Amino acid sequence: MTAKPPLPSSSLPMLDTPAAVIDVPRMQHNIRRMQSRMDALGVRFRPHVKTSKCVEVARAQIDAGAAGITVSTLKEAARFFDDGITDILYAVGMVASKLPAALALRRRGCDLKILTDSIVSAQAIAAFGAEFGETFDVWIEIDTDGHRSGIAPEDDALLDVARVLHEGGATLGGVMTHAGSSYDVDTPEALAAIAEQERAGCVRAATRLRDAGLPCPVVSVGSTPTALAATHLDGVTEVRAGVYVFFDLVMHNIGVCTTDELALSVLTTVIGHQPEKGWAIVDAGWMAMSRDRGTQKQKRDFGYGQVCRIDGSLLPGYQLSGANQEHGILSREGAPDPDIVAQFPIGTLLRILPNHACATGAQFPEYHAIAPDRALAVWSRLHGW
Amino acid sequence: MTAKPPLPSSSLPMLDTPAAVIDVPRMQHNIRRMQSRMDALGVRFRPHVKTSKCVEVARAQIDAGAAGITVSTLKEAARFFDDGITDILYAVGMVASKLPAALALRRRGCDLKILTDSIVSAQAIAAFGAEFGETFDVWIEIDTDGHRSGIAPEDDALLDVARVLHEGGATLGGVMTHAGSSYDVDTPEALAAIAEQERAGCVRAATRLRDAGLPCPVVSVGSTPTALAATHLDGVTEVRAGVYVFFDLVMHNIGVCTTDELALSVLTTVIGHQPEKGWAIVDAGWMAMSRDRGTQKQKRDFGYGQVCRIDGSLLPGYQLSGANQEHGILSREGAPDPDIVAQFPIGTLLRILPNHACATGAQFPEYHAIAPDRALAVWSRLHGW
Repeated sequence: MTAKPPLPSSSLPMLDTPAAVIDVPRMQHNIRRMQSRMDALGVRFRPHVKTSKCVEVARAQIDAGAAGITVSTLKEAARFFDDGITDILYAVGMVASKLPAALALRRRGCDLKILTDSIVSAQAIAAFGAEFGETFDVWIEIDTDGHRSGIAPEDDALLDVARVLHEGGATLGGVMTHAGSSYDVDTPEALAAIAEQERAGCVRAATRLRDAGLPCPVVSVGSTPTALAATHLDGVTEVRAGVYVFFDLVMHNIGVCTTDELALSVLTTVIGHQPEKGWAIVDAGWMAMSRDRGTQKQKRDFGYGQVCRIDGSLLPGYQLSGANQEHGILSREGAPDPDIVAQFPIGTLLRILPNHACATGAQFPEYHAIAPDRALAVWSRLHGW
Repeated sequence: MTAKPPLPSSSLPMLDTPAAVIDVPRMQHNIRRMQSRMDALGVRFRPHVKTSKCVEVARAQIDAGAAGITVSTLKEAARFFDDGITDILYAVGMVASKLPAALALRRRGCDLKILTDSIVSAQAIAAFGAEFGETFDVWIEIDTDGHRSGIAPEDDALLDVARVLHEGGATLGGVMTHAGSSYDVDTPEALAAIAEQERAGCVRAATRLRDAGLPCPVVSVGSTPTALAATHLDGVTEVRAGVYVFFDLVMHNIGVCTTDELALSVLTTVIGHQPEKGWAIVDAGWMAMSRDRGTQKQKRDFGYGQVCRIDGSLLPGYQLSGANQEHGILSREGAPDPDIVAQFPIGTLLRILPNHACATGAQFPEYHAIAPDRALAVWSRLHGW
């Protein structure tokens, strides 16, 4: 990893709060857990770096065996390519206005794959490629669960789009799908069923293309829950997942991790109290935690986050129950804590586990990464488009 | 204003999407509206720059007559002080660990005011000031509606905290309160009642201090809704408000602005469709809009935002009904639109009005400001702590 020089050890109390803290041993555990699972299932693994948007994190994933990365913006593609990663899938449907930026990346040597699920965009990609003499590597997005974009495996449009690309001179790189509805369930059986639906639908789309005489080398599936729930991945060539690298409370509620695996937290300081309400006020509001309330509709609602001691150990029952921009309200579930002032004196440092690591990370320009030897490093995070 | 050189006019279609767009004539209208109201009520106005975190916006507020600014972080204080604004209130309770940064700003010439609502922090401020020979200007936070921090006007702690500061060598600058519960109502009568509660409570706290022989030159109140609803501000010396500069759908639902006054929007591109569901997919997901769902519990739920044409005109009934990280789902309220593809072809540029301008702005490193002559300027936005 290319971290900046470490700060002195045990410097966590010296940080300005709020700060986004990565527990590097936990992150490395999560990376090994996913990579070893993918190795056992016999597929390549292409992590989605939209979760961390951080070069040091992506490097750790690559070093552990990942083959290429997935990005959510072309700015991410450019940043990670500048860091030496060349095999990049831009996993959002391409439109004509973004083709010049994609072309520029490919001309610089980036092995950028782009995505489409429509005739209109396929035609635009083919025409632009012909005009500029560029053979784009295009994957077709498949809809296996109806939650967002993509072409259904049995839809006639699948072959139409593929033919527009193939006959228009693009490389048909493969098919990909993301079963985002896996976030809506929380039992092993339901997760395994969605994983199988995701796998079978994407493989079926590939089979239809191949049966029509069209190339389809890659069959790419994934989300963190389905990657961890799939019992086999026959016909799949690669898996993508993002949030597993940090995990979060939403993933905990889905049932794919324990709180001991949550690698991202927000360091915060107690700045006041309202004793009669049982509140401590902390300096992590929604600007630090994000407005993500992903656990609200799950089996356990963690408010804006689970409270931990500065060493990362849980304080069960204590949550951020409310948030203004720079104020968080820390309280106990159920009856107010009459000893809140003694329990959390002004100046106390705490760490808050977030609902959604992708959203909380995005609120910070940088992470503070705690290495196994407790040394701290500053890892910058990409912001914007 | 110190905007960068304008881009060619009508360059909005040339921007990469998603992009945060400021309608400068609307912003200037909002600034004039608030300032003229404050002038009529006979109080100074100290805008809260946490909404924009943008030097050009703050300059426009100062140029229109604002007296100083309010900030939510010490990083904001440093940034705006570097731009020449010296009269700055840091409106989050001070703790010992942040005193060195506050001292550094004051030593550089910044007229920084700090805030407390506790004996513990008041003692820390007094001790630190004595140690470093600095006379901090400290305001006491008053709780007038029970929504967050502060000391209730009749609480004995008010005089205790004031005496710790006064006898400890700090300057007792005044009292301040923020009636955040004004966000929970939506009738003129209820807003006026909260505004009066906010005013009366803060004036009462000031009176108690003065009756005890303690100085209290400033009486500072405010939120956007109460600032616009107050019928008189007797005893108040200054008002603070932030989101009025852009307004947003939450403020629209509260009833203090029309949609024609919303000055911040997110420019987005249609990237696909799911015609049978009546969905258009756009490239503004929650990373662009934020996860703020502030209208969810209000009288009208706008999902993740109200859809407008590229010229800013409303498309009534069309909302972002769902959001993934970089995908927004655009649909019509009620029955699905069977003509969604023809209505919003791939490549169509749209503008989305946000629920909460402070949260949406925070997702972007910069704004694109459309001047009255349609020229575009890039205004950078502060990120992080």
